Amino acid sequence: MSTELLARLRKVVSADRLLTDPQALAAYSHDDAEWADFVPPLAVVRAASTEEVAAVVLIAASTGVRIVPRGAGTGLSGGANAVADSVVLTLELMTEILEINPDERYVRVQAGILNDSLRRAVAVQGLWYPPDPASYKISTIGGNIATNAGGLCCVKYGVTRDYVLGLKVVLADGAVVDLGRRTAKGVAGYDLTALLVGSEGTLGIVTEATLKLLPLAGRENRAVAGYFADLVDAGNAVAAVSRAGIIPAALELVDRTCLQAVDDWQQLGLSQEGGVLLLASVDEPGTRGEELTEELHAIFTAAGATKAERSLSAEHAEELFLARRLAYPALERLGPVLTEDVCVPRTAVPEMLRRIEDTARRFNTKIANIAHAGDGNLHPLIIAPVDDDGAKSRAKDAFDQIVADALELGGTTTGEHGVGLLKLPGMLAEFSPRVIALHRSVKAALDPQGVLNPGKAFPA
Amino acid sequence: MSTELLARLRKVVSADRLLTDPQALAAYSHDDAEWADFVPPLAVVRAASTEEVAAVVLIAASTGVRIVPRGAGTGLSGGANAVADSVVLTLELMTEILEINPDERYVRVQAGILNDSLRRAVAVQGLWYPPDPASYKISTIGGNIATNAGGLCCVKYGVTRDYVLGLKVVLADGAVVDLGRRTAKGVAGYDLTALLVGSEGTLGIVTEATLKLLPLAGRENRAVAGYFADLVDAGNAVAAVSRAGIIPAALELVDRTCLQAVDDWQQLGLSQEGGVLLLASVDEPGTRGEELTEELHAIFTAAGATKAERSLSAEHAEELFLARRLAYPALERLGPVLTEDVCVPRTAVPEMLRRIEDTARRFNTKIANIAHAGDGNLHPLIIAPVDDDGAKSRAKDAFDQIVADALELGGTTTGEHGVGLLKLPGMLAEFSPRVIALHRSVKAALDPQGVLNPGKAFPA
Repeated sequence: MSTELLARLRKVVSADRLLTDPQALAAYSHDDAEWADFVPPLAVVRAASTEEVAAVVLIAASTGVRIVPRGAGTGLSGGANAVADSVVLTLELMTEILEINPDERYVRVQAGILNDSLRRAVAVQGLWYPPDPASYKISTIGGNIATNAGGLCCVKYGVTRDYVLGLKVVLADGAVVDLGRRTAKGVAGYDLTALLVGSEGTLGIVTEATLKLLPLAGRENRAVAGYFADLVDAGNAVAAVSRAGIIPAALELVDRTCLQAVDDWQQLGLSQEGGVLLLASVDEPGTRGEELTEELHAIFTAAGATKAERSLSAEHAEELFLARRLAYPALERLGPVLTEDVCVPRTAVPEMLRRIEDTARRFNTKIANIAHAGDGNLHPLIIAPVDDDGAKSRAKDAFDQIVADALELGGTTTGEHGVGLLKLPGMLAEFSPRVIALHRSVKAALDPQGVLNPGKAFPA
Repeated sequence: MSTELLARLRKVVSADRLLTDPQALAAYSHDDAEWADFVPPLAVVRAASTEEVAAVVLIAASTGVRIVPRGAGTGLSGGANAVADSVVLTLELMTEILEINPDERYVRVQAGILNDSLRRAVAVQGLWYPPDPASYKISTIGGNIATNAGGLCCVKYGVTRDYVLGLKVVLADGAVVDLGRRTAKGVAGYDLTALLVGSEGTLGIVTEATLKLLPLAGRENRAVAGYFADLVDAGNAVAAVSRAGIIPAALELVDRTCLQAVDDWQQLGLSQEGGVLLLASVDEPGTRGEELTEELHAIFTAAGATKAERSLSAEHAEELFLARRLAYPALERLGPVLTEDVCVPRTAVPEMLRRIEDTARRFNTKIANIAHAGDGNLHPLIIAPVDDDGAKSRAKDAFDQIVADALELGGTTTGEHGVGLLKLPGMLAEFSPRVIALHRSVKAALDPQGVLNPGKAFPA
């Protein structure tokens, strides 16, 4: 299989973009979810165009090989981990901006462009692409689309799907189709665009996207930081914000373990201020922004904040969010991180965090919590020391327990990272057998041979 | 077929909700798109529960009968028109509100509830359901979901799909599934919820929906009205609003023919003020709202408005929109209205309106224009006098010409009404054969026997 495959690939892909050396195969064999299974692929193709993607898919389909598409490989669920007899097809070289249209407020890009590059390019023309996964500096738009990535501001501005107007897609037999539209509205036919978003490369390979933009103007950045003694007080503050009818541009929670890890690294003294840090940002301009910031400050104080602080400038607002930005890298210094992504009803956040504390104790494992508290999306970060197989096994058990608890509280197994491989058991527990069967039917309709990223996104 | 069918239906549906008399069959044989084909159904079932819907679908599937689901029958594309050998299954009696959850900001309802009833019920708890199709007082949430209904405020707040978190659906074999979630975020598996939204009852019958809500608080209603000499000036004003980075809560255009029809009916003297009326609404509160209203007023004036007016109170803002609300009923007084629904790029609105004027002349037919100018969604209303077959035929030709022009300008055949039957040719022209084939594959995957609303939503 491998010899014929490589001979045919060489005819359509130039040698410098067809990788077969063991180091390259290893480097492209998994995304950031090393905890999930992977094997080295047969080859790696660094595609340069939609036509090339189509040609490679056609070759795979006719030689019985599977395609594992990927962008920057920053996924956290194993969606881009290589499977047996697969070619990893990376779109990281396809980074072109094809059109920025300020009048219609959309941008057309190739899928391999980094979220941040897109963001900067449209900002020059006074436009804003809201979806801001924490990985925005290193993740591609194609990857964001494949996982329907969320982020911090999605509590107010929605997720990736809400900004995808149209897609160019390579189907499982190598055909190229244009889905969706460029107009602001449109309901012609099934929403195949929305079906493709979040399908993790199992139904088609997105090579280009038309993305809706918002005006950059009319927004100002303000922030409120509140330290709380414990999760219950912080949880009450979150509930009170919701009850006041305020939708902040972000509402993030950083727990004691994170604060401690940041302090151990950067000596900011954050963990002395309180046990839990709640960060809200407001982007309404002028007096309206001032009012909302005041209101949030008052709510934090009334909920028992041991300290509450308003930003005095846009720079200060950025500074207040420093602990949030440093938390993940600070924790990664402690050992491999297994990242959770459950989402629970907003009001269940304190109970869920309490259960996570229990789970950490019960399984004798270290768990830090970053949470998009405003929408109930929690990222418990389970840390196992390097080369400690026992700890690794206990981390996996804790991971399963957290999913089970989230489902029991009316939540979902994945809020924004995707199912990939790590969340297959969670998805099986979340949906009825018939809903899982519907996934199989849709997959069979679009990819009858199972060429595209088999075994991902839903339990086969 | 009919005898066995009725005998079996009588076992699961009580007699008062199983209609077979010719008058009832005629009344339920079509929606508001009488221009499209329809035949009387074999029977009408006014379903009372999800279980009953499931039982009826199962009977249909096993007797070779088709199901045409419907809500209030206010559709404008023929999506609910009865087909041969069909049972019309109306959900209009299923109007219950199952849960209003202010903390999580969602509502769970049965599909037959009117948009307006839902809107009022959640308002009592300080919550707001944004999607506001012009039919909101008479259309059901189930119908809104089936067509992915838009409305006036969707230019700022999005369409129905953006508010559907989860669905209870009866599948083509009578199985009942729960799709989606109740949490604010979630990406587990394919977005089957989004696939069902806008699928016009061809993939499943939505019996319950969980809908995301926004806080009612923090919004104030202001409006700006501008009269323009012609479409070019009004079009320039729309483009200038977009370029200023302002997204109004609504931006509506009402043309001379509409203004004249309103005047002929209500003697408001609107048509004396100018040729085209542009209406913008702003919902930011306080000084921010004042500022934006001023800015819009200045933009309208700079674009050459012959008269521009700001609202002085919320009531006055409502009054300024009176012409928009009266336009459709005023036109219906002139004869049967064939309603268009093309959507073009914002900047193409003036050119599209110019072409529509040409079309009216060329086909010797009366066409009035209401447009959601802010998102390029136009509703040319083609009016044919009663019992004038020649006029009716010319109206249909004009309808086709408008779709052709919209596609040529980079638009879509339907912005918010759905494909139904009337837009099948438009959809065929808009998408490639392979994209149409994808629709067929998805339909075959979910409804292999073709039980649910066959022949609608995409060309078979």
